[in-house]
Amino acid sequence: MSDFDTSLPSVRQIQTYITEKKEVELKLITNDLHVGKVFWQDPNCICLLDQYDLPIIIWRQAIVYLKPKN
Amino acid sequence: MSDFDTSLPSVRQIQTYITEKKEVELKLITNDLHVGKVFWQDPNCICLLDQYDLPIIIWRQAIVYLKPKN
Amino acid sequence: MSDFDTSLPSVRQIQTYITEKKEVELKLITNDLHVGKVFWQDPNCICLLDQYDLPIIIWRQAIVYLKPKN
Amino acid sequence: MSDFDTSLPSVRQIQTYITEKKEVELKLITNDLHVGKVFWQDPNCICLLDQYDLPIIIWRQAIVYLKPKN
Amino acid sequence: MSDFDTSLPSVRQIQTYITEKKEVELKLITNDLHVGKVFWQDPNCICLLDQYDLPIIIWRQAIVYLKPKN
Amino acid sequence: MSDFDTSLPSVRQIQTYITEKKEVELKLITNDLHVGKVFWQDPNCICLLDQYDLPIIIWRQAIVYLKPKN
Repeated sequence: MSDFDTSLPSVRQIQTYITEKKEVELKLITNDLHVGKVFWQDPNCICLLDQYDLPIIIWRQAIVYLKPKN
Repeated sequence: MSDFDTSLPSVRQIQTYITEKKEVELKLITNDLHVGKVFWQDPNCICLLDQYDLPIIIWRQAIVYLKPKN
Repeated sequence: MSDFDTSLPSVRQIQTYITEKKEVELKLITNDLHVGKVFWQDPNCICLLDQYDLPIIIWRQAIVYLKPKN
Repeated sequence: MSDFDTSLPSVRQIQTYITEKKEVELKLITNDLHVGKVFWQDPNCICLLDQYDLPIIIWRQAIVYLKPKN
Repeated sequence: MSDFDTSLPSVRQIQTYITEKKEVELKLITNDLHVGKVFWQDPNCICLLDQYDLPIIIWRQAIVYLKPKN
Repeated sequence: MSDFDTSLPSVRQIQTYITEKKEVELKLITNDLHVGKVFWQDPNCICLLDQYDLPIIIWRQAIVYLKPKN
């Protein structure tokens, strides 16, 4: 896999959310708000499972912020 | 072809959709929603065949998310 | 010319439109829709000739999609 | 950690805000305004603790400006 | 100057407009339309002289298209 | 400091505004207009001092144009 720096705090934090199957909220540049569980991440995208467990591949370039759903 | 990492989960997932001729939904930064079948992908673009089988070359930089049309 | 990978399907498809003097539709991130014939392409821009054959230099970063005008 | 130039004035200024636990205001490209304390920064993201001390991972590409909350 | 490929058609075309002191129209991602004469260009920016000959430094990342004012 | 090409006309012009403590106007991609004096610049950001001499760190990626306040 291309140079994906898994030591970065941002990558590690998301990896934790993946392991904990944590529900998160993702704000996108189109002002969409997506809630779901992070399935996997790679250098270009983050895959979120929505409430129907359907995979939605989100481009990192379109992400504004990610935070845990309290 | 320039360094297009076909081992990435995001690239592999799209390649699966291509092979399966899966209908997908693509949200773009202009809030456009495009439905069709992925024809090919390269490092800069994804080509979608619309319902008339016409090719629409979509720039990766303009993609927000891609998900299978259930 | 800087590393412009002319083997990419997206670059080759546009080169075909140039050779065939095909009329195309270009959607830009400002929601503008431009119709015309692709005159040339380089790593940063695509030059479109509008209906008055005037050249409009469009930055690739601002392109959402390109499709043939049926 | 990938090449994160900690000698840059912008990175150093944010590091100062982290050390001083300074409240800052972050304007994002979706016109959202977020207030909180910077928890950490890496080459891709800045993590802000909101008023409930919840971490919000903000992508640098989505940041317009950052300034101290006077 | 960093690697600014002056052999590119887009860079050469703009250089021609500079030499000819051609009036051009620049559409920006905020939908602003700026008219003026290109004063200089570098890898990051294009400097336009407005009708009062005041220099406006425009970031290339914010440019959608450039065309001659007929 | 990472490769920040201080020979570029755009970087030099801004350096001049810093030395002359020139008041400038900055248009951002969110359509915000900021007026102030450039305090410093680095490869990622420009720091503006507003009318209260408070530093506002503006990401270069969010800048549309910069021009002197006449």
